[in-house]
Amino acid sequence: MIKTLIATTALVTGFSAAAGAETIGVSIPAATHGWAGALNFHAERTVERLEKVYPDLDFVLTTTPDSATQVSDLEDMVATRGIDALVVLPFESEPLTGPIQRIADSGTWVTVVDRGLAVDGIENLYVAGDNNSFGRTAGEYFAETLDEGAKVVVMRGIPSTVDNERVAGFEAAIDGAGIEVLAMDHGNWNRDTAFTLMQDWLSRFGQIDAVWAADDDMAVGALAAIEQAGRTGEMFVVGGAGMKEMVDRIRSGDKSVPVNVTYPPAMISTAIEMTAAGIVGNAPMSGDFIIASELITLDNADDFYFEDSPY
Amino acid sequence: MIKTLIATTALVTGFSAAAGAETIGVSIPAATHGWAGALNFHAERTVERLEKVYPDLDFVLTTTPDSATQVSDLEDMVATRGIDALVVLPFESEPLTGPIQRIADSGTWVTVVDRGLAVDGIENLYVAGDNNSFGRTAGEYFAETLDEGAKVVVMRGIPSTVDNERVAGFEAAIDGAGIEVLAMDHGNWNRDTAFTLMQDWLSRFGQIDAVWAADDDMAVGALAAIEQAGRTGEMFVVGGAGMKEMVDRIRSGDKSVPVNVTYPPAMISTAIEMTAAGIVGNAPMSGDFIIASELITLDNADDFYFEDSPY
Repeated sequence: MIKTLIATTALVTGFSAAAGAETIGVSIPAATHGWAGALNFHAERTVERLEKVYPDLDFVLTTTPDSATQVSDLEDMVATRGIDALVVLPFESEPLTGPIQRIADSGTWVTVVDRGLAVDGIENLYVAGDNNSFGRTAGEYFAETLDEGAKVVVMRGIPSTVDNERVAGFEAAIDGAGIEVLAMDHGNWNRDTAFTLMQDWLSRFGQIDAVWAADDDMAVGALAAIEQAGRTGEMFVVGGAGMKEMVDRIRSGDKSVPVNVTYPPAMISTAIEMTAAGIVGNAPMSGDFIIASELITLDNADDFYFEDSPY
Repeated sequence: MIKTLIATTALVTGFSAAAGAETIGVSIPAATHGWAGALNFHAERTVERLEKVYPDLDFVLTTTPDSATQVSDLEDMVATRGIDALVVLPFESEPLTGPIQRIADSGTWVTVVDRGLAVDGIENLYVAGDNNSFGRTAGEYFAETLDEGAKVVVMRGIPSTVDNERVAGFEAAIDGAGIEVLAMDHGNWNRDTAFTLMQDWLSRFGQIDAVWAADDDMAVGALAAIEQAGRTGEMFVVGGAGMKEMVDRIRSGDKSVPVNVTYPPAMISTAIEMTAAGIVGNAPMSGDFIIASELITLDNADDFYFEDSPY
């Protein structure tokens, strides 16, 4: 079991801490791939920030390699740490729904991040990205930047509601802009699949002005294929999620990667900040917060580049 | 012009303050009626809290009696205070849309509360109540509490999308519970209209088990009519918005007012907290936060009772 524990001095040196101290448990997937790595980075950073700002708030942060471990982490947080609030990004929806429901029923505040539970209405606060906005933001950039008659290709993710919402947002945004979509196919959010797909399109189409790859991993694959074909300069590629490598290319003025669209792993920070503010202040924090995607450009790229983040 | 200014010592004694200080402007309607009074109370309290927590954050809080004054307040905040972020509850949507758009276009962060602008997509963050949840929460209490065959009356607000959403939520929640709605009519969110309407219903119906008044002002009118008719004890009344008087009746165990439903004026605190957290930390705060209504009961009423609030 991989487990990271961050706690204030009070909790490290003696259980139960200062009178009036309240404890927030944070449970997230382990850093097994890029986005989750950044999730861990931002969660740790925000916990450190809030521990400094609010000495009476204690945090326990655990990372989990699978659902079973996450369930036992949660039970542990309740039984031995007596958490007052839980911020959780469920490893999977189904197996976590029952355990999280029991925690909510016992009166503990529950904030769910990104992956919804299998039953509605369990959590107090739901924080998630906006897949329609993710596609729309990319589509709006295409509509504003490309001339009428421009030819583009679109790389979709794994068939899913997430993918459908993203593509619907993109298509609505380019509607009426005179952009010709030469081809649209599933790259399955996978770098290698995207590479092969892009190779195929490059051999079939003599002119491609832009590529929308609905995730940065696919954008990396597409860019590799374009470079190998010697057609860099002909087209730009817009991915999405704010991968460090992409943001770095934007801020260095790379014309192949002029912009990116956020689906921020830092949403875990949003969830922790809102949960903490609800505890220390009197502001209502119960509800649904849907985080809009933002366009990362040369002008603002520094705000989205985190030197120490793995992603 | 009624104007309240709250500022840190740094700003009172010398403009421009410490290097690195950032300023958040907050502009809200003046306390001309109950809900707005509470809005002012919570805004001031949250600004005071955040000024203590973050010495480098400065606030300027203005209250406005009309749209024209609000427009000039906003211009003033930008021109002389150089605000970095604006939290605004527009007095009216139409006249504020242009001025707020100009502020957003200049790069200032904009958080809009409760009343949306006439054009979509201007603000970075939108914080608002959930009218469907407001009606649903009341309806769920009716469905859980009342026996099959129970007879109720429903007092609607001024005809509007807000009212329609609330009633739709209520009706969906009582669907299938065997509750008979004897009558449903518009009390227009008005105490006197509600009093007259309730008098009429009391004379027409020999048995009424419960009243849903979709706002606390109407609940006050309905309760007065019931008392005058000597039928207190026959029925309970559920209003909504969390008026102090209602919360006080709940916590004192008054059977006529067993519960209430929030549509919290403290949402201004939510908006200020999220805006401040976005500035001092790295959490994304761009998007739509829809605050769920909560059921106020004997068990939790103390959390919703603010001794010093006017409402």
